[in-house]
This record gives sequence, C-alpha cells and structure tokens, in this order.
Amino acid sequence: MAFKTGDFVKVEKDGVFYEGHVIPGDAGYITLKMVGGGYVAGFLENEVSVTLLPPVETPPEPPKQVVRNTAKGAGIKAEPTGKKITVITTGGTIAAYVNHETRTVAPTFTGEDLLLEVPELEGFADFKIRDVFSLLSENMKPENWKELAQVIYDEIKAGADGIIVTHGTDTMTYSAAAAAYMIDTPVPIVFTGSQRSPDRPSSDNHMNLMCAARAAAGNIAEVLIVMHGSMSDDYCAVHRAVKARKMHTSRRDTFKSVNMFPIANMDYFTGELTFLSDYVNYAKRGENELKITPVLEEKCAIIKFVPGADPAILDYYIENGYKGIVLEGVGLGHVSDNWISSIQKAADKKIPVIVTSQCVYGSTALGTYETGLAMREAGVVEAVDQLTESVLVKLMWLLGQGLEYEKVKELIATEMKGDMSSMIID
Amino acid sequence: MAFKTGDFVKVEKDGVFYEGHVIPGDAGYITLKMVGGGYVAGFLENEVSVTLLPPVETPPEPPKQVVRNTAKGAGIKAEPTGKKITVITTGGTIAAYVNHETRTVAPTFTGEDLLLEVPELEGFADFKIRDVFSLLSENMKPENWKELAQVIYDEIKAGADGIIVTHGTDTMTYSAAAAAYMIDTPVPIVFTGSQRSPDRPSSDNHMNLMCAARAAAGNIAEVLIVMHGSMSDDYCAVHRAVKARKMHTSRRDTFKSVNMFPIANMDYFTGELTFLSDYVNYAKRGENELKITPVLEEKCAIIKFVPGADPAILDYYIENGYKGIVLEGVGLGHVSDNWISSIQKAADKKIPVIVTSQCVYGSTALGTYETGLAMREAGVVEAVDQLTESVLVKLMWLLGQGLEYEKVKELIATEMKGDMSSMIID
Repeated sequence: MAFKTGDFVKVEKDGVFYEGHVIPGDAGYITLKMVGGGYVAGFLENEVSVTLLPPVETPPEPPKQVVRNTAKGAGIKAEPTGKKITVITTGGTIAAYVNHETRTVAPTFTGEDLLLEVPELEGFADFKIRDVFSLLSENMKPENWKELAQVIYDEIKAGADGIIVTHGTDTMTYSAAAAAYMIDTPVPIVFTGSQRSPDRPSSDNHMNLMCAARAAAGNIAEVLIVMHGSMSDDYCAVHRAVKARKMHTSRRDTFKSVNMFPIANMDYFTGELTFLSDYVNYAKRGENELKITPVLEEKCAIIKFVPGADPAILDYYIENGYKGIVLEGVGLGHVSDNWISSIQKAADKKIPVIVTSQCVYGSTALGTYETGLAMREAGVVEAVDQLTESVLVKLMWLLGQGLEYEKVKELIATEMKGDMSSMIID
Repeated sequence: MAFKTGDFVKVEKDGVFYEGHVIPGDAGYITLKMVGGGYVAGFLENEVSVTLLPPVETPPEPPKQVVRNTAKGAGIKAEPTGKKITVITTGGTIAAYVNHETRTVAPTFTGEDLLLEVPELEGFADFKIRDVFSLLSENMKPENWKELAQVIYDEIKAGADGIIVTHGTDTMTYSAAAAAYMIDTPVPIVFTGSQRSPDRPSSDNHMNLMCAARAAAGNIAEVLIVMHGSMSDDYCAVHRAVKARKMHTSRRDTFKSVNMFPIANMDYFTGELTFLSDYVNYAKRGENELKITPVLEEKCAIIKFVPGADPAILDYYIENGYKGIVLEGVGLGHVSDNWISSIQKAADKKIPVIVTSQCVYGSTALGTYETGLAMREAGVVEAVDQLTESVLVKLMWLLGQGLEYEKVKELIATEMKGDMSSMIID
C-alpha cells in the first residue's frame, strides 16, 4: 500500500523496527520523521516492510517556559565575574524547538529562554538580552550582517564587557566574519549555536552557552566562534571566526579552525583555557579602540570551478553588474586555461577576482605551474591561506568602502584580523 | 629600486636570506621562485631589503633520461606476480619536471620515465605503457574522461590484470569517478599521482607508484585512488575513488576518504594491506563482468550557495541549456527560502537539481528544518552522503544515457559503486 504524508507507520528493515510519521521524500523511498529524537531517515521501499499504525494524537505544544535543565550542568560552578554581557539572539537551532505539527524544527526561543537552560550562569554576569532576528541561518543575508554588527557595536558602546551572539550554524562563519571585519573591538564578541535543538537530550546548547559566556567575560578580545571541540561534552574550541569553517553537517564538533589551531580549548567544567600554539597572538581585552565600518557591497559572488566548466559562467557575472568575484579553483587555485581570457575581461572592467582553493586546507600558490602564472598575469589576486567564505565577506566589505580596484586587490592579500598567515608553503 | 621578472635577487627578512628569481606577483609584493626546491614565496616589499645578484646562467635542462632513484626504494622488495599491468599516463605533477626557463613545472615524463623511477618494480609485473595525455589536470575535460575510460576498457579487454592511471591530483577525483561510473571492472583500476614533481627530493612519486602497482596486482577490483596516507613515507591509503577528495593544496597525504574510512592502508615496505572497517565490502577481482558506458552530458554545473546569493544565478543555468545542476547548500543542504521558486522552475523544465553540502563531511537531511522541506517539495534530490564532485560526474553520466527525469532523480539517490552509505544520521 502507499502511504501519505502524516501517516504514522512502523518500518521493518532487516529485523529492526522504526516508528515515525511519513514526510515528503524522494521517489522510491519512504521517508520518516522518527519518534523520539525527531531524526529523519529514508528507506528504499523495496527493502522494507511498512505497517500503518493507529494515528497518535499530536502531542501538545511544549510549554514555552523551559524546564531548567539541571542535569546537564551538574558539577559546574561559574563564579561571579561582575561583567556586563549582552546576549544577542538571531534564531538558529540553539533557539529552536520541534514544531509538533510539521515535525520540523523552527527558531522560537528568546534570549531569556536560552539563559533559563543554563542555571549555572545565574550570577555569573549581569546579562542583558537583545532578540534581533528569529531566522534559520540559511536565510541570513548581508543586510542582516550589517544590522547585527550595528547592534553589537551599540551594546559595546553602551558598556558591555562582552557579547554573545547566538546564531544558526549553517552560515555562522559568514556573519561572524562580517562582524570581525566591520568592528574593531576592545571586548570579546563570541558567536555560538547548537547542532541539536534544546529539546533533544543530546543538545549541545548547555555546554556551548556556558563556554561562550566564559569567553565573553574573558580576555580574548576578538570575534570568536565557541562550540564543541570534540564529540563529547568535555571542552569547547575557541576559534578565530575568520579562520573557522563548518566541516560536518551534523556533528557537534562541526567547526574546525582551518590552517591554524583554534586559539584555545576551554574546559567545560572549569572554564580553564589551554592555548594551542605559541605562534598565535590574539587581541587582548582593551587593546583595540571600538570602531565600526558597517558597509558591504552585496554584488559579489563565489564561483566554484569544475573541470570543463564554461568560462561563459564568469562572463555572466561580469556582464550582470557584479563588483567582485571569489573564484574557488582546484589544487593550488587553478582553473583551466580557457578561463584566462574571461579573467582578463574582469580585470579590464576592474572587477577583482580573488582565487581560493576548494581543497579547503592549505594555501593558493599560482607561481608553481604555468596555468597559475597565466592566471596571475591576467590579474587575479591570491587569497593565500584565507578561507573562501571569509574572503568573500572581506571582499564585500572592502568594495563597500568604495576603495579603488588596485587598493582592494592589495588589501585582500593583506592580513587583517588574523585572517592570513604569510608564506604558508606546506 | 624596482625589480623585474627574471632578476636573480637576494631578499633579507628579519635576518634571514632568500635567493631566487623574481616572478610576476601581487602589487606591493616581491615574489620569488626560490633556488633549491623551486618553491614560491611572496614578501611585502616594505618589510624586506632586496639586493640584485649577478644573473646566474640558466642551468642546463636535466637529461631526459632519469637517473634511477635507488636511494628512495632502499630495502623494498617486490616479488614477481606474473600479472600484466598497463600504466596509462595523462600528465600531472607525477610526470612533471621543473622547466628552468619559466621556472614552473610542466608534464614531460612518459610512462617509461616513470617506471625508471621505481627500479624495484622491475620483474614485479609485465608492464605495458600507454601515454594518452600530457595535461595538467586543471585542463582535463569531460571529453578526456571518456577517452581515458575507453583506453582503460580496451586494455582490460586486451588482457590487463590491472591498470595504473597516473594523473594530476587537482581533478583526479573527477576523472576517477568518471571511470568508476562508466566502467564495470573485473580488475583493479588504480589512479595515482604526486604532490611534488619527481625532480624534488621530497617527491612522493616513488611510494605512490610502488603502492599503486601493488594495488593494481591485488584483489580490490574497484576504481581506486592510491596516494600517501600520512605525511611520512610509511604507508599509502587505498581510497574508493567516488568517496575521496583532495583536502590540502600541498600536503602529500592530501586525499581523504569522506564519510568512510579508506578501504585499506598499504605498507610501503611490505605491501601488506590493513583493512580499516568490517563494514566496507569491496568488489573482488573477477567478481564483475567488464562493461563500458562511455557517455556524459557535459552541460551540467555546480552552484555553491552563499548567504544572500541571487536566485537569478540558478535561472541563468536554467535558461542557458544546462541539463542538470548540483546545488551545494549550507549545513544539511539548505539554500535560502527565496531560491525555492527558481528550484521549482528547474523542476518544471525537468532539470534535476541535486543537493549536497559545502560542509564536505556528513549527509544532507532536508527533512529536519522547514527550508529543507520546502526545497524537497520544490523537487530537489538529496545526495545524502555522496560527494559534490562525484555526484556531478554521476549526474553527467546518468543524463548522458538519455534517461528520463524521474529515473535520473531516482538513480542519483541510489547507491552505485559504493558512493552512498544509507541512513547516515550522525
């Protein structure tokens, strides 16, 4: 028999049973929102047997008032710091709850709800809440980055000793990089989120908020991403935002620092920091003057090159008013040689083309092979070991300031906010 | 003073000296092709002092006849196998030598030169050479994949017990995935390459060729990528080609299996295989009948979504004759909700849109959040835990067979050649 969306069913596969509600899925598959954690699983129809179960009454909406999750924080002490910390919420999974009608997860928590999840933070600081957006992060846009940066700036100007931004993980690196380039900050600005919504037993919200609060009260006055450092509830990694990337769709330790170690790891229970490299300097609390440059040229794009790709793709952007391009090449940053003339066209129109590598790790090096030299001669700029994602934001920000073509090219290849380690060769 | 391309100079930075030839570089930088290994380094002009040195005579081209590199293989024995192995060369760094005029690296080696590098292989098998291309791999195109697959097929048909393909690393996964989908093989087809050209002391050519030869004579009858498994000269990883990805621009252990372990590691000195998971089945020698389906629809593309990206980008592909799209979303595979109508437009035109994740690791899961459900209802197919790169090739191959829209969608989400592990949730 055929099953329809919303049916409550039991699937048997190789002697194992799965119960859940049918949701729309691919042809040939039966797709379930499973009972319990709410995970989704697809089964090939011809590999399983499915039985219709009596419909279960939709469980009542959980009370908006969240039950204090004392189990998670057992044994943790957080001594009062006397610091003023503003918690800025933007939505994301950390603010989300399963909607029992659609059985999907949507952001509904306020900052107040979030703090109730971490009773250990009571008295830790003087918390202020700013609920700014309630978005899943795939719907965040550059205009949101500007608004968010302005709120962060206003809060620091008004006396905050540290900022926590809760945010969806999908595009957290983009928003955090935007804050990093737009704001010179004397205090920590800490982005955090979670990979499991707070109503799941495996939610990472408690540990991430706990660590983020401690980082916000701490001495590393940069834009940071603070999230699980391993798959266990043991420590968080303190990443420099412009060097971090989401590297797994679902693992709680999804963020990885790329081409550097995290600045430090933070123990969940004690808050103790372990610095991971003697070579990484970080900005200290009070070292920099507060300043904001909240501008972005949104007409920028990333093109991921693939073998055989038609250079007309680059022409499309050139002819449609784009002001800057990040070209994600293969290996050391290469594209095929039939792209050279389109790159030259961009240069003739003074549209900066920044080259990164889809390897993710390592550094561009266009001087090693002939294709690279030709790309360089046609006018591209190398991102060296900067990330594709943060270099796009940097490009938007530089162009937003109305800087000249040559100046933009020069500054893209200049270290800012710790985004580039020079002379990386291996 | 200003320096020009080709000048031989000495750069001093913080008391350290670097000698080399000036090559074109970014504004504000002096860029050197350094003596010795041929590495390229950029220096901020205002941070260094530069002295012009007397020009050195361009060293003579090294003899084409390569000196047998006995030092590298010291202590390694490879017992005769009696197997027939065809070595197919396509170019790439493993076949490259520094050109002392441009000081860049270009592929000039033949298969015969390659084998001379590994004297330990003498007598190991009955080697046959097919020099097919001499390309840097960024210039490989889908038409080359077809030609290469045909040569591989012909050689197996003519009696080869195993195939080695030497290839540039930049796009090796694409060419190898194309061979994997096009050819059903009863014997191993082993892609290998190197990250350092053979004329460098640190070249990985010897170990990679040694391991590739052993894999080609072995029992894993799949399309494999065999390259360094660590940064040392100790073992190679034996990757399933459709699950492997180049993850570092320069490290010798650049290839990583994604969402699975490598099938095995191979000891450099003994050739012994260590299988890494009880759960991975692999095709055994002789298990499959030889067959080729050398077709590709080249009009396919990858779009990497970024926050705020204009859905008109997808429209461009729809309106310009593209037959299939791989959409690399954020997180679990998401794009922003204003892309839904363009996705629907593609579906209306029966252009399959396959969703992958730019996280690289993990699995798409569009049933968890509302945006994902909307994408699914608009007609996208999830790649689950298949790689963006191999799923593009799979899409080209399925469309090349003239299959119907619904059939292509069904087969994309069906495991082939070990490209998908079902029900990956965490």
